[in-house]
Amino acid sequence: MTARNLFLLPGDGIGPEAMGEVRKIIAYMNEAMNAGFVTDEGLVGGSAYDAHGAAISEADMQKALAADAVLFGAVGGPKWDSVPYEVRPEAGLLRLRKDLQLFANLRPAICYPALASASSLKPELVEGLDILIIRELTGGVYFGEPKEIIDLGNGQKRGIDTQVYDTYEIERIAGVAFEMARTRQNRVCSMEKRNVMKSGVLWNQVVTETHKAKYSDVQLEHMLADAGGMQLVRQPKQFDVIVTDNLFGDMLSDVAAMLTGSLGMLPSASLGAPDGKTGKRKALYEPVHGSAPDIAGKGIANPIAMIASFAMCLRYSFNLVKEADDLEKAIANVLDKGIRTGDIMADGARQVGTVEMGDAILAEF
Amino acid sequence: MTARNLFLLPGDGIGPEAMGEVRKIIAYMNEAMNAGFVTDEGLVGGSAYDAHGAAISEADMQKALAADAVLFGAVGGPKWDSVPYEVRPEAGLLRLRKDLQLFANLRPAICYPALASASSLKPELVEGLDILIIRELTGGVYFGEPKEIIDLGNGQKRGIDTQVYDTYEIERIAGVAFEMARTRQNRVCSMEKRNVMKSGVLWNQVVTETHKAKYSDVQLEHMLADAGGMQLVRQPKQFDVIVTDNLFGDMLSDVAAMLTGSLGMLPSASLGAPDGKTGKRKALYEPVHGSAPDIAGKGIANPIAMIASFAMCLRYSFNLVKEADDLEKAIANVLDKGIRTGDIMADGARQVGTVEMGDAILAEF
Ligand SMILES: CC(C)[C@H](C(=O)O)[C@@H](O)C(=O)O
Ligand SMILES: CC(C)[C@H](C(=O)O)[C@@H](O)C(=O)O
Repeated sequence: MTARNLFLLPGDGIGPEAMGEVRKIIAYMNEAMNAGFVTDEGLVGGSAYDAHGAAISEADMQKALAADAVLFGAVGGPKWDSVPYEVRPEAGLLRLRKDLQLFANLRPAICYPALASASSLKPELVEGLDILIIRELTGGVYFGEPKEIIDLGNGQKRGIDTQVYDTYEIERIAGVAFEMARTRQNRVCSMEKRNVMKSGVLWNQVVTETHKAKYSDVQLEHMLADAGGMQLVRQPKQFDVIVTDNLFGDMLSDVAAMLTGSLGMLPSASLGAPDGKTGKRKALYEPVHGSAPDIAGKGIANPIAMIASFAMCLRYSFNLVKEADDLEKAIANVLDKGIRTGDIMADGARQVGTVEMGDAILAEF
Repeated sequence: MTARNLFLLPGDGIGPEAMGEVRKIIAYMNEAMNAGFVTDEGLVGGSAYDAHGAAISEADMQKALAADAVLFGAVGGPKWDSVPYEVRPEAGLLRLRKDLQLFANLRPAICYPALASASSLKPELVEGLDILIIRELTGGVYFGEPKEIIDLGNGQKRGIDTQVYDTYEIERIAGVAFEMARTRQNRVCSMEKRNVMKSGVLWNQVVTETHKAKYSDVQLEHMLADAGGMQLVRQPKQFDVIVTDNLFGDMLSDVAAMLTGSLGMLPSASLGAPDGKTGKRKALYEPVHGSAPDIAGKGIANPIAMIASFAMCLRYSFNLVKEADDLEKAIANVLDKGIRTGDIMADGARQVGTVEMGDAILAEF
């Protein structure tokens, strides 16, 4: 069996602690299942800035490019709030997304039954919630040029960002959404602001044409992104797959994540296009939550989102579907048993730290 | 007393029905309070397109520019879904905002106590909610150039929009937010994506400097817009005044509106800068809800948001503060009495149509 190469970028804040629990699962899979994972590790975000003066070093970028999959923790913290824009912690993540061409960001918004009461929404609105948000990740206003601040004189400056999408970018992300929908409830809702943005007009057209040409078996709906935000709050279960651009995806997936009451639990996958020869996709897996500097280093962070991200890695990068299912099941079982980190604590549950939570999941796996 | 000139643009869908109820209040104020309102009326949106082939005619634009205040209903509907982009219904509203230079959009997100249970959030999270979102309305990605779809050949097109903010635009909207905060809980939260957007970096800087120079008595917080969306869902009552750009404001104010469970109830005001000589501001008042074509013409639409928009007009355009308070109180009283349109119907309440709701409010006024 060829080695399975994982590149670990724990990052800042609670990233390293959460990653530690994934490392235990990797070791177990190598030992007990002969999984053949080979891991290497690098720095990203503030920790990379402290070591190299960049949000990720060239050497680590090369390793990320060469790996079968990247596992990413979290970046940022008050310590780096005033470093120059080009080397701010987020720049490391954005460069990874761009250089690995990870155009498809998969963000499941799932409400774990054991946690439905933790949502700020009424439980009946979120129980059983299972949305998949497909966010375009390498285009739009995140990367379009010009992107600059110009000095106009007279004390006036001008801040400019450019929202830009080409047909092929919309086509390929729509394709991912339709393919995913076929494995689920077969429904896609595409969101943009075509009533205000020309990129939204093009988005709407291309999604419609892609649907007609290749995926007419899937049910397609279009919604304005602001109305989409409303509907997510009003009646989230109406959605199956949502496909949207980079910035709307950023906003909408965060709202959707918060609805579930399971923010510390939600994973994400960022995928590239399949390689023409090998069929392999570049991929990066990261929890939706951030670096939570306020609780970092205390051993109390919830490692579930990071572990669930590794489950996505098993599924999408290595086609280890059963193992991915088992790992997700192990997480659900541990929650059902009432084992909880502080962020998801509930009456009558047993509160544990990061390491114990990792151990409990491993024991169920 | 000089005449108070109102220009009414009922628009499409339920707009005309809702406006009808405001007309009754205006007539009453003229008769009983000698208020001196003089009204004229025009077409906007789909109805203007049908009549003139434009989303608003030049003649009506002139009237809007000359009026003391514009009352706007709603625009759009499936009938006009495929008219050319330049004359789509929304273009009328966008032109009014731009040509009247209505840069400050005030969107209160208030939870009427009688309606707290209608929210999808747990009642304790929304009871007493009172947020004021100040959205920049004449800049950003809505109006920046280039804004176009380019044909690249090879079947590829490129959709481009430009997000652009100048110092003075950020300064003046921040000023409105700080001034408003002083009349409330004295707290402002500014939202942008400075970690991704250069316009966000400038936004953050200018808000910070404006605060330091002129409003350091107000409490200022900065939040990333995606985190802001999350926090609105998680714990909305943490906010007093939120200030943000045009596109984030569109998304966030819709989410906030939906939280209240009172979507059919929420008004908005769009204000220009005070005139150097007269101190008067150009202004447009409109409900947050849309044209609701599915229920248009049935006499069942909720006119409260439109009436509450007129209350904002009394307050901000005519300084009729007591009358505005009284009108808002009349709305609350009618709700307390259990009189409801279908959209906010509840067990034990009495369901009424548009006209009866208007009559009930007028009777309390
Ligand atoms: C950290 C930041 C650059 C990032 C983004 O805006 O994409 C984050 O919010 C996310 O959603 O992954
Ligand atoms: C109708 C549309 C152009 C408008 C906007 O996007 O600003 C609406 O959504 C709003 O929020 O007033």
